[in-house]
Amino acid sequence: MELLEERIRRDGVVKAGGVLKVDAFLNHQMDIELFSQMAEEWKRLFAGKPINKILTIEASGIGIAAVVAHHFGVPVVFAKKTQSINLDGTMYSTRIQSFTHNRIYDVIVSTRFLGPDDHVLIIDDFLANGCALRGLLEICESAGATVEGIGIAIEKGFQPGGDELREAGYDLQSLAIVEAMDPATGAIEFRS
Amino acid sequence: MELLEERIRRDGVVKAGGVLKVDAFLNHQMDIELFSQMAEEWKRLFAGKPINKILTIEASGIGIAAVVAHHFGVPVVFAKKTQSINLDGTMYSTRIQSFTHNRIYDVIVSTRFLGPDDHVLIIDDFLANGCALRGLLEICESAGATVEGIGIAIEKGFQPGGDELREAGYDLQSLAIVEAMDPATGAIEFRS
Repeated sequence: MELLEERIRRDGVVKAGGVLKVDAFLNHQMDIELFSQMAEEWKRLFAGKPINKILTIEASGIGIAAVVAHHFGVPVVFAKKTQSINLDGTMYSTRIQSFTHNRIYDVIVSTRFLGPDDHVLIIDDFLANGCALRGLLEICESAGATVEGIGIAIEKGFQPGGDELREAGYDLQSLAIVEAMDPATGAIEFRS
Repeated sequence: MELLEERIRRDGVVKAGGVLKVDAFLNHQMDIELFSQMAEEWKRLFAGKPINKILTIEASGIGIAAVVAHHFGVPVVFAKKTQSINLDGTMYSTRIQSFTHNRIYDVIVSTRFLGPDDHVLIIDDFLANGCALRGLLEICESAGATVEGIGIAIEKGFQPGGDELREAGYDLQSLAIVEAMDPATGAIEFRS
């Protein structure tokens, strides 16, 4: 998506170690007008699918998911990260590793809010190795929900998560795929 | 706001210890159509104020803030909770106590996204003792930003936070104020 790529070039900051900072518009300050145009693009890409729920994970996915849900006219469920859960059969749970924060989280969704009748569009801000996304997919599988598609704002194409999920058959639509970044010059190359 | 009060009566669950569970529509599953009508109500209540930014705190405030920002046509900044920060002068920070989670958080906002030109509407899902809100107000003060108003979905009127903030002169608009709740019967009484 041209508009998002332009914005990443303009306001994104390339750091060492494969880090791309987009906190000016995506995950600390959020440009809701941009999110709205991203939502319209996903509506086009997932047209005709019987999506009745958006699933995301706290915290930075929630803002994008809320705007997307507004455009699709469906509710959002956001998975919660926790480090202390009492598993009492009322929660789907899985464990994910965050490389960014070097931590392991339990991720939970109440069984009341996801089930076999749900046709889910998963939305998140970033996809790199795909750990968080795999956690959400596992939760959908536990719930018997159908994953109609996955919408990602920015995919790091130089990490394997996205291509592995496409090979596994998921309809994954990343609006910008970063193929390479140079922290010395700040140059960013997108997959065309 | 009638619509929100009705929804709380229908789908809210009163628990012992002054706990009101509204995870079916507000802070786990999110009813975006409801959020949209709440946003319209805040637009009416804060009409004429030169609001140019929505400020909230992760995680459950973000969804409401995003929909409100969509209606106001302004960006959102969400404060981040962290337990390990390197204070390097690029962040406003404050410390808040969460009674719900029995923890102390550092809360941060980048100095790049809040400043003296900002006219802020603070949005959050819940107000009880007001600790989180005081943290956000302190951050606005550090930034030299003007707080034009505070919009809360559900205020617990039997806890002091809301009335203290009104006495301090803030334009605080809670869409539903719970005056009393009975965990035995599930009855909820709203301030009229």
